[in-house]
Amino acid sequence: MLKRLFPILDWGPTYTRETLSADLLAAVIVAIMLIPQSLAYALLAGLPAEVGLYASIVPILVYAVFGTSRTLAVGPVAVASLMTAAAVGQVAAQGTPEYLGAAILLAFLSGVMLLAMGIARLGFLASFLSHPVISGFISASGILIAASQIKHILGISAGGQTLPEILGALWENLFQINPLTLVIGIGATAFLFWARTGLKPLLLARGIEPKRAAALARTGPVVAVAVTTLLAAGLAALAQALGYDGTGIKTVGEVPSGLPLPALPPFDADLWKRLAMPALLISVVGYVETISVAQTLAAKRRQRIDPDQELIALGAANVGSALSGGFPVTGGFARSVVNFDAGAETPAAGAYTAILMALATLTLTSLLYYLPQATLAATIIVAVLSLVDLGALPRIFAYSRSDGAAMAATILVTLLAGVEKGILAGVALSLLLHLYRSSRPHVAIVGQVPGTEHFRNVKRHDVVTSPEVVTIRVDESLYFANARYLEDVVQAEVATHPALRHVVLMCPAVNAIDASALESLEAINQRLGDAGVSLHLTEVKGPVMDRLRRTHFLRDMSGRVFLTQCDAMRALAPALTAETCALPRRETLKAR
Amino acid sequence: MLKRLFPILDWGPTYTRETLSADLLAAVIVAIMLIPQSLAYALLAGLPAEVGLYASIVPILVYAVFGTSRTLAVGPVAVASLMTAAAVGQVAAQGTPEYLGAAILLAFLSGVMLLAMGIARLGFLASFLSHPVISGFISASGILIAASQIKHILGISAGGQTLPEILGALWENLFQINPLTLVIGIGATAFLFWARTGLKPLLLARGIEPKRAAALARTGPVVAVAVTTLLAAGLAALAQALGYDGTGIKTVGEVPSGLPLPALPPFDADLWKRLAMPALLISVVGYVETISVAQTLAAKRRQRIDPDQELIALGAANVGSALSGGFPVTGGFARSVVNFDAGAETPAAGAYTAILMALATLTLTSLLYYLPQATLAATIIVAVLSLVDLGALPRIFAYSRSDGAAMAATILVTLLAGVEKGILAGVALSLLLHLYRSSRPHVAIVGQVPGTEHFRNVKRHDVVTSPEVVTIRVDESLYFANARYLEDVVQAEVATHPALRHVVLMCPAVNAIDASALESLEAINQRLGDAGVSLHLTEVKGPVMDRLRRTHFLRDMSGRVFLTQCDAMRALAPALTAETCALPRRETLKAR
Repeated sequence: MLKRLFPILDWGPTYTRETLSADLLAAVIVAIMLIPQSLAYALLAGLPAEVGLYASIVPILVYAVFGTSRTLAVGPVAVASLMTAAAVGQVAAQGTPEYLGAAILLAFLSGVMLLAMGIARLGFLASFLSHPVISGFISASGILIAASQIKHILGISAGGQTLPEILGALWENLFQINPLTLVIGIGATAFLFWARTGLKPLLLARGIEPKRAAALARTGPVVAVAVTTLLAAGLAALAQALGYDGTGIKTVGEVPSGLPLPALPPFDADLWKRLAMPALLISVVGYVETISVAQTLAAKRRQRIDPDQELIALGAANVGSALSGGFPVTGGFARSVVNFDAGAETPAAGAYTAILMALATLTLTSLLYYLPQATLAATIIVAVLSLVDLGALPRIFAYSRSDGAAMAATILVTLLAGVEKGILAGVALSLLLHLYRSSRPHVAIVGQVPGTEHFRNVKRHDVVTSPEVVTIRVDESLYFANARYLEDVVQAEVATHPALRHVVLMCPAVNAIDASALESLEAINQRLGDAGVSLHLTEVKGPVMDRLRRTHFLRDMSGRVFLTQCDAMRALAPALTAETCALPRRETLKAR
Repeated sequence: MLKRLFPILDWGPTYTRETLSADLLAAVIVAIMLIPQSLAYALLAGLPAEVGLYASIVPILVYAVFGTSRTLAVGPVAVASLMTAAAVGQVAAQGTPEYLGAAILLAFLSGVMLLAMGIARLGFLASFLSHPVISGFISASGILIAASQIKHILGISAGGQTLPEILGALWENLFQINPLTLVIGIGATAFLFWARTGLKPLLLARGIEPKRAAALARTGPVVAVAVTTLLAAGLAALAQALGYDGTGIKTVGEVPSGLPLPALPPFDADLWKRLAMPALLISVVGYVETISVAQTLAAKRRQRIDPDQELIALGAANVGSALSGGFPVTGGFARSVVNFDAGAETPAAGAYTAILMALATLTLTSLLYYLPQATLAATIIVAVLSLVDLGALPRIFAYSRSDGAAMAATILVTLLAGVEKGILAGVALSLLLHLYRSSRPHVAIVGQVPGTEHFRNVKRHDVVTSPEVVTIRVDESLYFANARYLEDVVQAEVATHPALRHVVLMCPAVNAIDASALESLEAINQRLGDAGVSLHLTEVKGPVMDRLRRTHFLRDMSGRVFLTQCDAMRALAPALTAETCALPRRETLKAR
């Protein structure tokens, strides 16, 4: 029990010197990657740069205690940062203390919600997000994020939460382009795109061993940060020497040095109310991403992830982020893969990363003064464009039109109306489509394949039927969404078969019957009785039968429950089945 | 096609003299029942009495043209009237022209929505209302309606939309009780309760033939109306003669005589927006009631109801109601049963009822001046208490705890927070519970029953398994709500079986695999591959297999698809199944 709540008790006691050195190496590589990312995602969320650093210390330590994944790296990520900007931008103006307070509150609320869901074992709520919706949402968010960063590359001011707003604002302010910023921005972007794919082969060709080359290739962003910071500092010195009033390059500026101080989220009932829905959405989206990264990595080493404990760990990490002045965090995909590939073996690697980030916060902040915002924007653009996978849309559409429609709607609404409406529209549409699909279950009128014990769809096979018996096979569990449809189907059969005396419902694929469906069966039985027709059931599954036995329905039913369809036909249409279904009972049983 | 849209073309041409006389008789009986009801439900909706009469003319005529039910009687009903009062009370004060305008707009919006749903064939939206939710909602509404009418019985003024509000208002104004009103109210209520059950046996005992006795027994409300109106008129005359300033009995008062004039709903964008949600709820609740009454009655005569056409008919009826100054109408249960029992054969009976109601509007309104509101309240109370069926709660709870919980929540929220929140809470909870149930599908690890071809749950049967093979049988379709759970189950098996080499998914009950589940299967395959384990499928249904063939999944899968579980075990664990599964292929096929 204690081990379940504190997975650290599981791996802590057997920690060895070898594990330590493996974890330390991974921690160094992740920290090098995390420094520019944490600054960039704070920028994306509209927050001061140091908030990104703060969100990369305490949350990682907390996750190391509670998390069941050995290699997941939590911290600021792109999509959650965009959602933070969208949510907080609605309640406060960027750059104000209220904005920072609202971002901290958002992390706090999201953490508390995740903790509550973990304690109440409500992880299933994440199932509301179907894969096409998540995939469409991530792609659309990636596009929105990239578009929102173009202003930093151009060196102009522009706002907007939706794609038309962002593009419109860029267009309006296009004449303000700062050429120096543009050069740095485009240069950094081009370098990072190249580093992503071209750096590793180059290092390999130089004879560097593969593992080291892969690690070095990840340093692209740090190289870009260092080079452009030096460049900006040099240009600033040059401008001052020549008597100009600055270079016009927007940089990170003054970053307070020192560890984050304990903070409390603002207590304001109205603010809590307005941020509750965004916090829930960030929680669920973040959790879905976290769990899927964690499971993918755990599987490679045959380790186990406890989904409910992950809710608690992610919740605690977010509460930790809030209490140390940070913003919402989740498990990042790229960062976790780097951690895994670099050889991290336990969550201690995360703890070492946190310590390194704390050291960076203490010592490096003064070096960030001349770091151009355009470089951070380039880091973001290159990172998020790898999330955009619009090719999934035609692929999913080809497999299932309704899933494709849900994905397309999510993408469109996210781009045109913002992240919150986008994800809500996707969830609503996939629920609707799911209900629509299951409201029209596959139902077949079946007849007997001559000379066999098989009963098949009358529309697809040459089968024998009796005018007095209609057999309806339902290929779905019966519940409120499809119960009424079954009533319609039976009603239609009765209305079109004047000689009808028996309706047989064949239930081999009915895994459950809920109270609505039971009510519909009772109504069907009643209505058939009024029309002088008996209702029979065949091939009812054990658990379904157990449950029906607890009701009046079996007693009130005008007909009988047969073990097999053959039994039913032998009793109801003996002439039809005399030869083929007259097998001994043992054989019939086996045929199921 | 034309016959589909205008079912009148179906029965109209073959209309005979016999049908005419049967329909006429039914129309007279229904009209006698409808006059007090239409006045009472207008009172319940907070509207002038004549609006109830107006809503009983044009809508019935319109339904006779478009409806597919031969015997459904549309008009004002209790639950829709309560919902009207709740919705309109939020946007206007009772007794004002704005209140009436909003009620007319509500009927118009509801009609347009139903028409749109009918044209787009969206009848499945009604499936959102599970039976326990509808049942709980109707019971709770019945209690709310009865409670709201007590003030008329007591002769006091009191408001309130929820049970605590209504009871609180009654308690506060209790000292204003009017004794004469109380006598009339309690007398009328007692008489109507008695008439409901006691009148028919009495008439039968007097030697009146059963059919006639049943019809006469329905005249109870009209008798109550006539007697109490005379009484109130007499008391008023007496009071005047004695020099008192009236009797204190609240009566219907001046009712304008004459047919309804064509009206247009108010055009006010804000009002349309605020009434859209209530209109949708009234539409769906009304439609569900209508279709279930229509189907019950149609079944008795083996007639067919077209659910999509019913949407159009009910929508047109509501638009008709709005354009003639009426309020929302639906198919009434009691009234339709009376129409059916009285021998109505075609919708023409409805048209005759409408004509009789129009005549009543022209001639009888002056007689209604002294009709006590207490009598109408008694009519309502007696009618709605038959809708209350709280006994269904333990019954449904015993069958399914989650359905019982949804019903209990609907009842409680409806009583404590009002009709709109009640029905929304019920819908949300039943969707959540459905997703919760299907997010944890029944999944069994199966092994072979020794000496047979059967594979059963290892927890329930003595079965043989191989340490290298785990067979997981999924008893549910795979879709977004349960896809992740399957990943968890597989992950857990891999983590606990170190010798594992093969995972077999046995899919005889999987009726569909959506894009989310496909993605999960791909992830499972990928992760198993990383762990050196192959994934196999067995007993996949035809349509599911057809769809999988359109994807990369079958090609990427590390294992194979076997027709039967026996085939799989023969290939993967030959030692285990050497004897029993070594049957010729033909036999194996039959075993499915």
